[in-house]
Amino acid sequence: MAFKKVSRIKIPEATIRRLSLYDRCLDDVRKAGKKIVSSSDIARKCGTNPAQIRKDFAYFGEFGVRGVGYYVENLQEDIKKALGIDRSWNCALVGAGNLGFALLGTDSLAERGFRISAIFEQDPILVEMGSFRDIPLFSMDQMQRIVPEMGIRIGIIAVSPENALKVSHQLIDAGVKGILNFTPATLKVPLGTILKNVDFAIDLEGLAFQLANA
Amino acid sequence: MAFKKVSRIKIPEATIRRLSLYDRCLDDVRKAGKKIVSSSDIARKCGTNPAQIRKDFAYFGEFGVRGVGYYVENLQEDIKKALGIDRSWNCALVGAGNLGFALLGTDSLAERGFRISAIFEQDPILVEMGSFRDIPLFSMDQMQRIVPEMGIRIGIIAVSPENALKVSHQLIDAGVKGILNFTPATLKVPLGTILKNVDFAIDLEGLAFQLANA
Repeated sequence: MAFKKVSRIKIPEATIRRLSLYDRCLDDVRKAGKKIVSSSDIARKCGTNPAQIRKDFAYFGEFGVRGVGYYVENLQEDIKKALGIDRSWNCALVGAGNLGFALLGTDSLAERGFRISAIFEQDPILVEMGSFRDIPLFSMDQMQRIVPEMGIRIGIIAVSPENALKVSHQLIDAGVKGILNFTPATLKVPLGTILKNVDFAIDLEGLAFQLANA
Repeated sequence: MAFKKVSRIKIPEATIRRLSLYDRCLDDVRKAGKKIVSSSDIARKCGTNPAQIRKDFAYFGEFGVRGVGYYVENLQEDIKKALGIDRSWNCALVGAGNLGFALLGTDSLAERGFRISAIFEQDPILVEMGSFRDIPLFSMDQMQRIVPEMGIRIGIIAVSPENALKVSHQLIDAGVKGILNFTPATLKVPLGTILKNVDFAIDLEGLAFQLANA
């Protein structure tokens, strides 16, 4: 069984998010020592239904053997490949404030293949520190040189909202291809650059919706 | 035009997330002084298509007048009502670490109706501060009393992963109905309590997927 190369069909963002969740559930399954898993097993663990899972997998082509289930290890490999996390991604963090430090303290990013290789910061006193948890700290004007030198593909923006737009331009100029924006600032990126905005209020709104309709 | 009371039909989480995004786009539209907006306008601003928007709105019943468009103000009122953010929600933050302070510094939560009314923290030295940005700081053992007293409905868990499970139980015992979990810990909540997990790696995986398939 192998997921085919992703076709031209646009895969819904919700499917991608669910693939991430399936992968996490499969971690638990694997740790529990199970080798084969059915879509019903995954559905139960992830709080979805088997039809949804099969539909999500179908975007990527082949299925496991029906009635027998999926080999956990192979399925995870295929999901990671589909998600593009069968490799590691070099990331730069911009902004060594509270949020930046919180992100640096999150082991789960590295576990999922996202390695923060450099930190950029405008405050010279922080830059003086030289590094944080062995990750080198640079001033903003070193970005143009460091990003290509270290092969950094993803920039994580954790600066104050009023600086976010400028930082996004600097990152793109330096050659970053993907941006994760933690600020509420509205950014625009050129074609070929991928932007994702993280907005904690959206999760709270999802919660509020369910509470209001419970 | 008015959104009907949400029916028994299960509304996809992706629709709820998009409603949050539409509401943010409509903020911009309103600020630009526009009074009427078409689904094509919203689609262009939000990077989706008009059919998707009409489909999302259809879960809530009535539409605006076709061909004329939606009154921005009414539409936003209806979306906020549907999302349950036509009111304000009292939240408690548990954990005054880097992430906690980052969240406290995020004005956008309050702007969207989520008011952090209390902070709970296990470190007595921090609790000694008494308050942060006028938000009272309490020790963990005050949770049982403070949550009902302040009418807190939502608990935000920003502690270390190994403490998350215990904190979730404490919050639920104290009467919290919704939990936003920022830790990678896997939590289980009883029926009637809503749990949402925030996982920054999922956003990065969405980015990786697009970069790998660009």
